[in-house]
Amino acid sequence: MNAYEKLEERFARLSKIEEALGVLGWDRATMMPEGGAAGRAEQIATLSVIAHEQLADPALGELFAAVDAAALDDWQRANFHEMQRTWTHATAVPADLVEASSRAISECETVWLQTRKNDDFPTLLPFLTREIDLIRQVAQARADALGCSPYDALLDQFDPGMRAETIDPIFAELVRFLPDFIDEVLTHQAQSAPPVQPTGPFPEAVQRELCHSFMTTMGFDFNHGRLDTSAHAFCGGTLDDARLTTNFDEADFARSIMGTIHETGHALYGMGLPPRWRYQPVGQARGMSLHESQSLLMEMQVCRSRDFLEYAAPIMRAKLANGSDGPEWSADNLFRLTTRVQRSLIRIDADEVTYPAHVILRYGLERRLIAGDLAPAELPDAWRAAMLELVGVAPDTDRDGCMQDIHWVSGGFGYFPTYTLGAMTAAQLYAAARQQTPDITAGIRQGNFGPLLGWLRENVHHKASSLSTVDIVTQATGKPLDVEVFKTHLRQRYLADR
Amino acid sequence: MNAYEKLEERFARLSKIEEALGVLGWDRATMMPEGGAAGRAEQIATLSVIAHEQLADPALGELFAAVDAAALDDWQRANFHEMQRTWTHATAVPADLVEASSRAISECETVWLQTRKNDDFPTLLPFLTREIDLIRQVAQARADALGCSPYDALLDQFDPGMRAETIDPIFAELVRFLPDFIDEVLTHQAQSAPPVQPTGPFPEAVQRELCHSFMTTMGFDFNHGRLDTSAHAFCGGTLDDARLTTNFDEADFARSIMGTIHETGHALYGMGLPPRWRYQPVGQARGMSLHESQSLLMEMQVCRSRDFLEYAAPIMRAKLANGSDGPEWSADNLFRLTTRVQRSLIRIDADEVTYPAHVILRYGLERRLIAGDLAPAELPDAWRAAMLELVGVAPDTDRDGCMQDIHWVSGGFGYFPTYTLGAMTAAQLYAAARQQTPDITAGIRQGNFGPLLGWLRENVHHKASSLSTVDIVTQATGKPLDVEVFKTHLRQRYLADR
Repeated sequence: MNAYEKLEERFARLSKIEEALGVLGWDRATMMPEGGAAGRAEQIATLSVIAHEQLADPALGELFAAVDAAALDDWQRANFHEMQRTWTHATAVPADLVEASSRAISECETVWLQTRKNDDFPTLLPFLTREIDLIRQVAQARADALGCSPYDALLDQFDPGMRAETIDPIFAELVRFLPDFIDEVLTHQAQSAPPVQPTGPFPEAVQRELCHSFMTTMGFDFNHGRLDTSAHAFCGGTLDDARLTTNFDEADFARSIMGTIHETGHALYGMGLPPRWRYQPVGQARGMSLHESQSLLMEMQVCRSRDFLEYAAPIMRAKLANGSDGPEWSADNLFRLTTRVQRSLIRIDADEVTYPAHVILRYGLERRLIAGDLAPAELPDAWRAAMLELVGVAPDTDRDGCMQDIHWVSGGFGYFPTYTLGAMTAAQLYAAARQQTPDITAGIRQGNFGPLLGWLRENVHHKASSLSTVDIVTQATGKPLDVEVFKTHLRQRYLADR
Repeated sequence: MNAYEKLEERFARLSKIEEALGVLGWDRATMMPEGGAAGRAEQIATLSVIAHEQLADPALGELFAAVDAAALDDWQRANFHEMQRTWTHATAVPADLVEASSRAISECETVWLQTRKNDDFPTLLPFLTREIDLIRQVAQARADALGCSPYDALLDQFDPGMRAETIDPIFAELVRFLPDFIDEVLTHQAQSAPPVQPTGPFPEAVQRELCHSFMTTMGFDFNHGRLDTSAHAFCGGTLDDARLTTNFDEADFARSIMGTIHETGHALYGMGLPPRWRYQPVGQARGMSLHESQSLLMEMQVCRSRDFLEYAAPIMRAKLANGSDGPEWSADNLFRLTTRVQRSLIRIDADEVTYPAHVILRYGLERRLIAGDLAPAELPDAWRAAMLELVGVAPDTDRDGCMQDIHWVSGGFGYFPTYTLGAMTAAQLYAAARQQTPDITAGIRQGNFGPLLGWLRENVHHKASSLSTVDIVTQATGKPLDVEVFKTHLRQRYLADR
């Protein structure tokens, strides 16, 4: 076995430990009784330390040095590069800090699940403070290894190669564009009668059935995955066992359905990765911007479009309308409902147009938290001020404010910008896909996702991490990420198309 | 940190890996889609290898040698002894054999889940043959280390210190006693009208509710555990997160209820172990005979008794009878139903009297499989012959024959005898408990399990592995395991008490 093959063997073991950690995390969010939290935190911390030890083994450095890169093929060479990137991130952080931060995150997340219900930020604060303190130490350690700022080092975990200096002008352009555009959309929207809101209750069992049905339509194979319920929807699991979650509101069917479609977009990416490379770094999804582009392509670009809703409206009516054939179930009404724009408090309920403002708010606050310019205790007030400035409304409670998201309490600093980068990438990919493959639009109108999924498999999923994000986007669409494409999509949907 | 403390730290890590493996196994049996099986087998094999490496580290031998045993207190000394016992078992088996057998077990179990449905032994055979071949290698390696026979080495994993030479006379005595006794019971039973079978269907949701209700009555805390569904009922999880399973038959409510009560007996043992010693060998349950004594004490001794059924009959009637107040729901009728004796094919459905015959059959066959005196291909015929001889009936299908149990396909050779040793221990513990604490019987009649659970916590659960099984039984009941106590229980219930 040569040095490269030995590395593959070591990274395969690491990957299987990480898959096991995924099962522990999924179970914690969906199945575990509350009383199991402390023990689960210990299990997760222990496997995290073991995973870290695999990477921190000094023998790895020697193996890297012994690899004959010229003898590798393209995928192996990309794999070798990803191994080194992973290793740099991992060895940057000492084992005791990995363990301490992993445990602090588990505890903080558990306390958050309780305190959010009671709108009790003061009880969360010491856990959050301790967690952020440890994350800042982690960020500094990574920054030293990567030669970038602490915040960039966090970003790089989720979106390899991404830097704040790339994001700043993009978000600045959106801040220039959005306020006037939101006003324009709201004015335009007010010129026609508001869409009719179907009235529930919509039984959870029926919503679940619809979710399963749309998942199957989209190409999800239930022999290789599940849909369950958790407080905050997510998609985990592996390429042969995808674990999606959603949550149900019997007054609002669109929430679970659009949420499930979103997570299914993530799942289809994961399930489309090349099995040959399952246990290697090059076989993993490229990064969270591209991951989010896959969920938002399905949710925002496809399933909130008139094309899809022409197909889906009769199905929703049949399941949910209780025999009513009122105008609320027309495709046009459902399109106007699922693309309704309004200033609101909760990011996950925000529409496509105001969503970037929610993200830019979080991006600004988390940069200051990580820089140490904002104390966790100041978060509730800072949140309210930023909401007023960026979205135009502010929450009365922390539950609807800085406690609404799981990201920070679970250590996900640097993650938020990927939502908006993903939304822009989704618009650009879908535009290119439809241009290259006219069957796609016709298929969507008939509930046939085959042509679209085929294009995504070939142009995105099968590439895994063999190329950089910018190369994948450029090869697929002919150019790197371009804000103008996103603006064109928004103008088309929210001004021209109604 | 002295050598003993370093050992505690190492064994704590091992214990947390094993807890994580427990979650992976539970998920595989209850939640995982079939398509995830191959990947899950890889995850489990990897964590098993890592657990094995923790134990096989040569540094452990040095630490053992450096411990000053005289400086340890009783629990530490017992812990040190259990550490060495665990280590001897683990280091007996080379890492590649651990990995190969773990993977073969995962595959065999997955194939069994499919082939059992189709009564397709030929498809299972190559997987079973390979698995048994690897288990025999494991047994031989353990036997060499322990200085006993390969079969004894397997027994010792489940029931530390137990040997075939101890079991042989006990089972021989039962083989002498049972045939005449079964005839006597069947004759006696035939003298009165048979009990009335309530007719279903009994909806799964109602059965599940009843199971939850009886679990709560017994002292199960749902903040620290769950009840789910799997093909073969089991109890896993940890002391703060017990994971029980059952399965439902809408024609037969007693199956899920008695099965759940059985698993709850296991769970209460696990949940009663001392938290201080959670992650140490001395803090684990003593062995499977004692574990089974806890489930059978709850199921057979308590919940199939007239005492408990006086309490439970009105509750079952209220939930299941659909308003009927027919004689089928009387405590006397339910007692006669749940203690009905008949010769039957399926072990898990067998009554208390014929059950030992099912166990003795398996004990005989697995000894021959491990000794190499019986080829796996011969199993179906050997099973039928032994059933005719020991139980007096034989199956038409392998699904109702040698494919009915999960034990062999999941590597559990040496496990079966613990069922009957457990049944005998249960009778002896319950007799002693009632004699020492008269409140127990009065409590059970009122659905108050407090006095019984208190006695079990003090005399069994809290002792964990600080004493040997025989010492725990002797301290609790005044003597070691005594077949006469079990025979007295059977005579009392099946001849005198009806």
